[in-house]
Amino acid sequence: MLQLDPQSQSCGSAMLQPTKPAIMIIGGAEDKVHGREILRTFFNRSGGPEAHIAIIPSASREPNLTGGRYVSIFEDMGAKSVQMLDIREREQTNDPYWQRATEECTGVFLTGGDQLRLCALLADTALIDTVRLRAQMGQITLAGTSAGAAIMGHHMIAGGGSGESPNRALVDMATGLSIVPELIVDQHFHNRNRMARLMSAVSMYADLLGIGIDEDTCAMVEQGGGLQVLGKGTVTVIDPSDMTHTNEPIVGSTDPLSLHSLKIHILCHGDRYHLHKRALL
Amino acid sequence: MLQLDPQSQSCGSAMLQPTKPAIMIIGGAEDKVHGREILRTFFNRSGGPEAHIAIIPSASREPNLTGGRYVSIFEDMGAKSVQMLDIREREQTNDPYWQRATEECTGVFLTGGDQLRLCALLADTALIDTVRLRAQMGQITLAGTSAGAAIMGHHMIAGGGSGESPNRALVDMATGLSIVPELIVDQHFHNRNRMARLMSAVSMYADLLGIGIDEDTCAMVEQGGGLQVLGKGTVTVIDPSDMTHTNEPIVGSTDPLSLHSLKIHILCHGDRYHLHKRALL
Repeated sequence: MLQLDPQSQSCGSAMLQPTKPAIMIIGGAEDKVHGREILRTFFNRSGGPEAHIAIIPSASREPNLTGGRYVSIFEDMGAKSVQMLDIREREQTNDPYWQRATEECTGVFLTGGDQLRLCALLADTALIDTVRLRAQMGQITLAGTSAGAAIMGHHMIAGGGSGESPNRALVDMATGLSIVPELIVDQHFHNRNRMARLMSAVSMYADLLGIGIDEDTCAMVEQGGGLQVLGKGTVTVIDPSDMTHTNEPIVGSTDPLSLHSLKIHILCHGDRYHLHKRALL
Repeated sequence: MLQLDPQSQSCGSAMLQPTKPAIMIIGGAEDKVHGREILRTFFNRSGGPEAHIAIIPSASREPNLTGGRYVSIFEDMGAKSVQMLDIREREQTNDPYWQRATEECTGVFLTGGDQLRLCALLADTALIDTVRLRAQMGQITLAGTSAGAAIMGHHMIAGGGSGESPNRALVDMATGLSIVPELIVDQHFHNRNRMARLMSAVSMYADLLGIGIDEDTCAMVEQGGGLQVLGKGTVTVIDPSDMTHTNEPIVGSTDPLSLHSLKIHILCHGDRYHLHKRALL
């Protein structure tokens, strides 16, 4: 009699893993040692054994160390090629070799570090324009973790505090890389108690959606706007569509914000949400 | 020509301060030195110069020190009488003198300390039954700060953590004193990053309402269910009426909770909300 072996079943489903490109917004501190679910999903969606992966470590002040770790991981997984675009000056983005790399790769990975540094180096360069367009058109899988996640929206959280009521001074905003412009992303979310700062950010841009991503957790956005949660934590969606308020303190004020009728979803592994419909799937 | 003196105007409005009894749920660390808005409101709603105030310091392990401070404050404000019901053993609640005090007072103030200690001393005693009934019937103003606020609901947050996704192990629940049974109260709310623990609590009792109160802030509940915010911080209302979820971890599990469609209001000074209608006013 045929006995199903759970081990081979699990291998079977791993082989059937979807390989469609996606934009993967990772909350930082993703598992790099054990199951590596998120990094493996990035590898698979970048083409698996056919993947040509570009690592951009420019958010980090130790790009060799930070980027090198991801190079090893994706090489070990069996990617066809993995190269590091070690951009330390804006001028380097004009290098034809790196331009070609971004045109020909199947996956791009933005490491953690400082989101302001990453934006200062990449914003308004032809290189990031290519990456953005190819990711938005579903030609490549683009992943960003921590600072690499923060830059996904048009409006970006550059820094902020916790331990206070939502208020205008609790969050510093800057301009991101507009990969998924309609989002304001925060990372290390529950781990660093960032709910109030994300609420403060969302209050200023009520047409946008706040997305708070925990460590070792990924909000994976597919073509068409479907978002799926991977990893061990949660993705918090703050939807201010119905928001009203009774005060509107000036920018920089520490006065607490009145924010009525926020809709909040705490999404776990496997939960799905549609960014354009603003509805659970 | 008649000149209005702002000073006398302000005195005038102070004299017209509403004096209806209310239940005042205070998030801890209320201003005891400067404007003392919250404590002054308690004094006024307890009857002002006609007030007979009972302080119950039993949550505190230093009841004389903790309670004594409030005695001085309300004596300084000009209350007709202020006495401390320094209950350190359950048996003391049967003392006819203290029974009579709770029957005849116009205001009761529960200090901070440890909510489990307060409940252990007072739960199911005739003394707290008298206080609860009189407060619910609008005969007295009952205020509780910090631990004295935590005990207001039937289900009480006894302790918990922060820095994690909402999960069953993040909050320890116990039975409160059921002053406003439909609430789960948390205090020092944004100050101690307690959003995730209140969400975790509310997820277990989806027919209740979560109320998170910041320091120096008060959710004042009037007869009929109207809630008004006083003080310098915010009152966060977590309304799970429309909540759905895709998982239901067992009690004590650290697995993150999936919580969809929570409605959240961050209310500031002067904002009003109706507890029974679950609507902003």
